Amino acid sequence: MIKTCIAGATGYTGAELVKLISGHPDAELTAVTSRSYAGQNLTDIFPALRGMVDITCEPMDIESLKGRIDCVFLALPHKVSMAYAPFFIENNIKVIDLSADFRFKNPKAYEAAYQTHTAPDLLDRAVYGLSEIYGDAIKQADLVGNPGCYPTSLLLPLIPLIKEGMISTRGIVSDSKSGVSGAGRALSLSSHFCEVNESFKPYKVGNHRHVPEMEEILSSHAQESVKITFVPHLIPLTRGMVSTIYAEVTTPTSHEAVMKTLKQYYRPDSFVRLLPQGQFPDTAHVRGTNFCDIGVHVDPDSQRIILISAIDNILKGAAGQAVQNMNLMFGINQRRGLELIPGAI
Amino acid sequence: MIKTCIAGATGYTGAELVKLISGHPDAELTAVTSRSYAGQNLTDIFPALRGMVDITCEPMDIESLKGRIDCVFLALPHKVSMAYAPFFIENNIKVIDLSADFRFKNPKAYEAAYQTHTAPDLLDRAVYGLSEIYGDAIKQADLVGNPGCYPTSLLLPLIPLIKEGMISTRGIVSDSKSGVSGAGRALSLSSHFCEVNESFKPYKVGNHRHVPEMEEILSSHAQESVKITFVPHLIPLTRGMVSTIYAEVTTPTSHEAVMKTLKQYYRPDSFVRLLPQGQFPDTAHVRGTNFCDIGVHVDPDSQRIILISAIDNILKGAAGQAVQNMNLMFGINQRRGLELIPGAI
Amino acid sequence: MIKTCIAGATGYTGAELVKLISGHPDAELTAVTSRSYAGQNLTDIFPALRGMVDITCEPMDIESLKGRIDCVFLALPHKVSMAYAPFFIENNIKVIDLSADFRFKNPKAYEAAYQTHTAPDLLDRAVYGLSEIYGDAIKQADLVGNPGCYPTSLLLPLIPLIKEGMISTRGIVSDSKSGVSGAGRALSLSSHFCEVNESFKPYKVGNHRHVPEMEEILSSHAQESVKITFVPHLIPLTRGMVSTIYAEVTTPTSHEAVMKTLKQYYRPDSFVRLLPQGQFPDTAHVRGTNFCDIGVHVDPDSQRIILISAIDNILKGAAGQAVQNMNLMFGINQRRGLELIPGAI
Amino acid sequence: MIKTCIAGATGYTGAELVKLISGHPDAELTAVTSRSYAGQNLTDIFPALRGMVDITCEPMDIESLKGRIDCVFLALPHKVSMAYAPFFIENNIKVIDLSADFRFKNPKAYEAAYQTHTAPDLLDRAVYGLSEIYGDAIKQADLVGNPGCYPTSLLLPLIPLIKEGMISTRGIVSDSKSGVSGAGRALSLSSHFCEVNESFKPYKVGNHRHVPEMEEILSSHAQESVKITFVPHLIPLTRGMVSTIYAEVTTPTSHEAVMKTLKQYYRPDSFVRLLPQGQFPDTAHVRGTNFCDIGVHVDPDSQRIILISAIDNILKGAAGQAVQNMNLMFGINQRRGLELIPGAI
Repeated sequence: MIKTCIAGATGYTGAELVKLISGHPDAELTAVTSRSYAGQNLTDIFPALRGMVDITCEPMDIESLKGRIDCVFLALPHKVSMAYAPFFIENNIKVIDLSADFRFKNPKAYEAAYQTHTAPDLLDRAVYGLSEIYGDAIKQADLVGNPGCYPTSLLLPLIPLIKEGMISTRGIVSDSKSGVSGAGRALSLSSHFCEVNESFKPYKVGNHRHVPEMEEILSSHAQESVKITFVPHLIPLTRGMVSTIYAEVTTPTSHEAVMKTLKQYYRPDSFVRLLPQGQFPDTAHVRGTNFCDIGVHVDPDSQRIILISAIDNILKGAAGQAVQNMNLMFGINQRRGLELIPGAI
Repeated sequence: MIKTCIAGATGYTGAELVKLISGHPDAELTAVTSRSYAGQNLTDIFPALRGMVDITCEPMDIESLKGRIDCVFLALPHKVSMAYAPFFIENNIKVIDLSADFRFKNPKAYEAAYQTHTAPDLLDRAVYGLSEIYGDAIKQADLVGNPGCYPTSLLLPLIPLIKEGMISTRGIVSDSKSGVSGAGRALSLSSHFCEVNESFKPYKVGNHRHVPEMEEILSSHAQESVKITFVPHLIPLTRGMVSTIYAEVTTPTSHEAVMKTLKQYYRPDSFVRLLPQGQFPDTAHVRGTNFCDIGVHVDPDSQRIILISAIDNILKGAAGQAVQNMNLMFGINQRRGLELIPGAI
Repeated sequence: MIKTCIAGATGYTGAELVKLISGHPDAELTAVTSRSYAGQNLTDIFPALRGMVDITCEPMDIESLKGRIDCVFLALPHKVSMAYAPFFIENNIKVIDLSADFRFKNPKAYEAAYQTHTAPDLLDRAVYGLSEIYGDAIKQADLVGNPGCYPTSLLLPLIPLIKEGMISTRGIVSDSKSGVSGAGRALSLSSHFCEVNESFKPYKVGNHRHVPEMEEILSSHAQESVKITFVPHLIPLTRGMVSTIYAEVTTPTSHEAVMKTLKQYYRPDSFVRLLPQGQFPDTAHVRGTNFCDIGVHVDPDSQRIILISAIDNILKGAAGQAVQNMNLMFGINQRRGLELIPGAI
Repeated sequence: MIKTCIAGATGYTGAELVKLISGHPDAELTAVTSRSYAGQNLTDIFPALRGMVDITCEPMDIESLKGRIDCVFLALPHKVSMAYAPFFIENNIKVIDLSADFRFKNPKAYEAAYQTHTAPDLLDRAVYGLSEIYGDAIKQADLVGNPGCYPTSLLLPLIPLIKEGMISTRGIVSDSKSGVSGAGRALSLSSHFCEVNESFKPYKVGNHRHVPEMEEILSSHAQESVKITFVPHLIPLTRGMVSTIYAEVTTPTSHEAVMKTLKQYYRPDSFVRLLPQGQFPDTAHVRGTNFCDIGVHVDPDSQRIILISAIDNILKGAAGQAVQNMNLMFGINQRRGLELIPGAI
């Protein structure tokens, strides 16, 4: 059994990790930490868990965790993660960080979007946790920077086509949409029920912090600088994310050719489901699962490729992919504990 | 492995049974039937299931099922179930019927609320599938009439107090509220998105067909005729049901005394969770689980007891309790396949 | 033109008053105050108003309002209202207070539920602003305590039947449900989108502060002490409130007799719409209007009367009724500015 | 007073026309027709209207309408409208058609997307009812083809920039999102509450019938053939539409220059509200109004212009624009009856 600690267990991502690890056949919930709720049982904070989970929140005390755990999930704010990560690494505790702190290779790019990096020497050691793409490296890693939700939804469809040179590196547009849980459990007028309900709107047009993360990864695969146009929107639902991506082909292509390329990257045992021609994703079909569904439309006139992906932003976009990475890091089947069967509703 | 058939797999209850049986460690999905979708793979109807379930809908052909299955779930309309049930019983196939056809002992009561009963001789043989109350009988049964969702939410809190004589048999009021999935997948203006969204309303005031079902069961426990006042309402959400029940005490009592009685009926390994004083249920806390949460308030002035229960109407109110009954009928732990850990959101 | 000031214009009730007064043919928006947003144009806070309303928030400065306005709406927190009200009264500015500060005749009852009253001498002068019931007194008033939303939904159906002795003063139960806007615009986990969406739950069981307000009014009409059992619930929608009220008859009665009594109190030009037998209210039918819809069911067996009312909690439950009261206080038709035609959706 | 008939009054668009005309100071509701509900009072179908509207649905009998009305709104299905329109025109009754039947100049384009046109001779006479663009022609028209909702949301931001040559005619992408009311009141699994709630998805990717309508209009302004890439999505809310449009500049430009052009087309008395730099539309800000809000972002790196528009699809996207067109056709201020003040929620 992999002994795990979830640091920051009382946010939505942390709580989802609690749920996944509690149901994982090869892992156990050894410790949970919370700054605000230390000393309280998790069921006091999430009564839904009553009878299923029985564990008390600890303050984050790295000394007390030494020797007790094999793996820590850092579901903490940016900046806090990089303060703790070095200690865990030194003590042979594998780290899966869900903040942005270990997603970048280039500290300058991180610092431009976030703040000064206090553990830049770890950036080279960290592996970007996009499981289906970096699986081999993740298996060897002791520090994984789990991807952002938007980057996950966008990179999975784009990387194969960029890498194989099927689409142009210029002019990529991603019109993305996220459910409200992406904004977390911290109070904010923009997550206040009456402000979101019966509302749909774009936000952070032209300046979302996930853009440099996506551009760094895409550029590494293209072996040239890739710039994208990205507009996120807020959907009035709890879980779900759709990216509708518009790209130009380099040479005339077909639906069949695009699918053939994608299939080389995403085998049936991965969490990417490639939809048949004429079918497109729906957040409802991936809700509660670790799947990323991808549908493709090639417009014969404009020779533009439309790639549409859907994920559950809390699962494949955060906690689910983190557990998938844990599975890879500990050498077990990546699907363990993630065979979540979706419902019709 | 218990070989099961789900008849009527393409309604919401049927689809939830598909999900539960697919994830059940001791049962397997041997056959699914559908009148409208025969010949189609379930994933054509529910793309969410792609990669997780692979089975083709059959027309209902009872001959072809003989010898292939141990147990059938009838997720069929009232009237259709009683046409098929006798055949399965004759062929030693255990039946869990999710229609109203086998919920009544008294055929007259059934006929007043529904229609002529065509298999009245089976009514005595059928056991009412309220698992926590009739568990011993269910273990011996080969035909179970799975309770309605409203009756489940109302009977679990009421039966212990009625049986122990703590509340009056007169003047019970249940103000109940259900999510829209309770109305099923059949098209209707009353389930049309724009009619339901941002709407809350009562319906079938004074004439819901679940009332005679509840009154027959309550009367049997009270050993006198019990009449209740029941008003159902429609909540603009998919899954969830709350019953707020008002009852008069027979002798002055306390929160502690009520809880003590309830605890005698609902042990920690049951699916009833009794909430501490001052805490009350929320549909969000039971969503996706087979739990029934119950909170109690005793008003010291009026000596009225307020019992509040919440269930997921598709699970404890239908498919979940059906699987719980299958577990009991086949002599395995009632929680097998139902250890569904809820999420914070 | 009635010159008005809306104090506290940036909460949901204040904003609705802005909308109503802006469209009122006989009133004008002379000033709006806000502690948090003083100096900002209302369209900066509510971009929806752009092009329709152009006014800058002032800090509350009672001296500067003297002589500029005829009427002030206090959409302020409890306790703050009673600090300002005396000044406006002294300066012949009519006051419509939307807090609880002037709803009680008995300062002890107010103090038990809220806090020390700092203007108790004004309580006798204040008129309870339940427009259809206290219209004559409101016409003479210069200080109106606008009712709470729950009390409005509950008192309109109950007062006529209590007053005419048709229902028992004992054993009244109101099972009430409110949309989320009732909790206001202040941030709170209980109004956080992901906590409310797809959730339905009771709250403040047995101790809501609207209970003493309702009991004082009901007792005054019954001429004896009336105690009620009241359980509020939260509906996952923005606007709307339903009260389902269960009462016992004093002598056997009929639907017709109940309706006859209600019709004596609520004439066609009032904002109470009495529904025909067999029809019941829906929050969607009153959304965006000042109507209170009432449906009645008399259970022939139990001789219990079920009264169901629906209002838009922000309109008839707050801002709409406040404007209706302004109309009455200034001697104009109570429907002026409130002929809001609802849509089908 | 303009005497109007609303044909097809019991769909969502028809019902919204009933609401608008009932509140219009210069128009009156003379007749409403309905095939399904002939003989019933509108309040039987839409109880929300009780006390506000009192009119009985007639079957469509064109003879009986002659002489009674000045103007007819055809809120009918495609194909039905073109069967009736000629008669009204002959009898000097102005026609505002909300189907697609009179939106095209080129009957071939109509026939490719819909069916054989049975009144092609009227196409030249019909004016496309995009009020802010074709206002002068609409003032002279007796037959207006009211635009589709998607075309309205897309053409208002695009036409000025296309016409002034600021954006390229190649490579325009519109990623559009609509609330569920756009699908109407007819029953369909795709509007069934449980299928839509908590779901977000694209639909009709690459083949929506609004595309030829948009391309014909854009081409006429560009004076060359314009092809667009259009992907519609379904938002889980009742009212609201957002189009996020990506276009390439012809020569380097700035936010200021784009706004200057837009301002030349949309004066303050129009229903287009141009948002300041850094602000973007929200469906909640236009809900219940006839406004089209437009926000602009010019990406300095890619020299791509992002135009984002929001409308209420039932109002500016259908019934509201139809009334605006009626105002223009009858020579009254285009804002009459449409000064709908939005609420904060």
